[in-house]
Amino acid sequence: MARKKSADLEKTRQSLLEVGIALLLEKGYNATGIQEIATAANIPKGSFYNYFASKEDFGVAVIRQYTKDSTGKWLALLQEATRKENSFKALSTVFLAVTEKYRCEEVKKGCLLGTMAAEISEASEECRLALKESIAEFRGILAEHLLSGQQLGKVRKDIPAEHLADLVWDAWQGSLLRMKVEKSVDPVNQDLEVLFHHILVL
Amino acid sequence: MARKKSADLEKTRQSLLEVGIALLLEKGYNATGIQEIATAANIPKGSFYNYFASKEDFGVAVIRQYTKDSTGKWLALLQEATRKENSFKALSTVFLAVTEKYRCEEVKKGCLLGTMAAEISEASEECRLALKESIAEFRGILAEHLLSGQQLGKVRKDIPAEHLADLVWDAWQGSLLRMKVEKSVDPVNQDLEVLFHHILVL
Repeated sequence: MARKKSADLEKTRQSLLEVGIALLLEKGYNATGIQEIATAANIPKGSFYNYFASKEDFGVAVIRQYTKDSTGKWLALLQEATRKENSFKALSTVFLAVTEKYRCEEVKKGCLLGTMAAEISEASEECRLALKESIAEFRGILAEHLLSGQQLGKVRKDIPAEHLADLVWDAWQGSLLRMKVEKSVDPVNQDLEVLFHHILVL
Repeated sequence: MARKKSADLEKTRQSLLEVGIALLLEKGYNATGIQEIATAANIPKGSFYNYFASKEDFGVAVIRQYTKDSTGKWLALLQEATRKENSFKALSTVFLAVTEKYRCEEVKKGCLLGTMAAEISEASEECRLALKESIAEFRGILAEHLLSGQQLGKVRKDIPAEHLADLVWDAWQGSLLRMKVEKSVDPVNQDLEVLFHHILVL
């Protein structure tokens, strides 16, 4: 019985995180209330606090869940692409694939890490630290692939792979902001073209 | 008398915009209430609607005022710098000067256009269009200076100046998000170094 109860609790917690990711992506952190999150997950508002101590605590958990989901997707796509092409080309392929996904589904949403960085990093120290960690994880994945590209002689070597990775990440996040403002993935695709076909290559 | 009254109205409107810029930079759009804006400008909440039809209308006016102030500052700095150096070098100098200002005062604030793009462009069509226009204005200033750099033989010519300008703007905005997350201007300075000393130059 205890095991079943624990499994139920975990299921509801996961459900809260899933609706949280969707709501925060659509409306942002400040515009999303606990009542709304609870309603979307089919639990009474009061029960929310059985799962999370506070909205801030929930925000941190949402950032971590989103990062886990997203890095999982990126790594799976990268693994698939590297079966067919070198790791630098694979990185470009995956960026284009993710952008295509944005075009189809999520032009209005953007990346939760970027939008939460804009909105919450000053107000919540806990969320800021979670975002810092998540972003470092993504930058690490990019740096690894760019370093491998350098070793294969595909990527320029006059700039450390970590610095190139940071530039790619920052341009990506900036272009996702413009995607929301222009309601188009054109800004994202243009930056990817400039970066992967001109700037990063040897 | 009528002229004095009109001048008073304009003064209060400007005061509302000034406190609005400060509050929105610090807390974001959704977390800032009309009561708070009115209190900070020393007017009763009800009077707010003598100046702006709605919070959204106020948001658009804040975006426009911020853009006017910021482009004014950038153009003045650029003009001063181009007395001493070519327009591409001047652009780099001004980016570093603005970053230094962020370091001293506003690490926690970032750029209002980027943070509002993240927070509001889906919820308010009016704000989205105002942001689009403001960002286009900045990108135009960058493109002009990069084109001039190309004509002077200082900037690479294999990529159109407009595309380079967009990449610089996007990387700038992305690095300002990381500035907020890392509580440091190091990400901004690193991108500027990579862009202006390696990637953009011939």
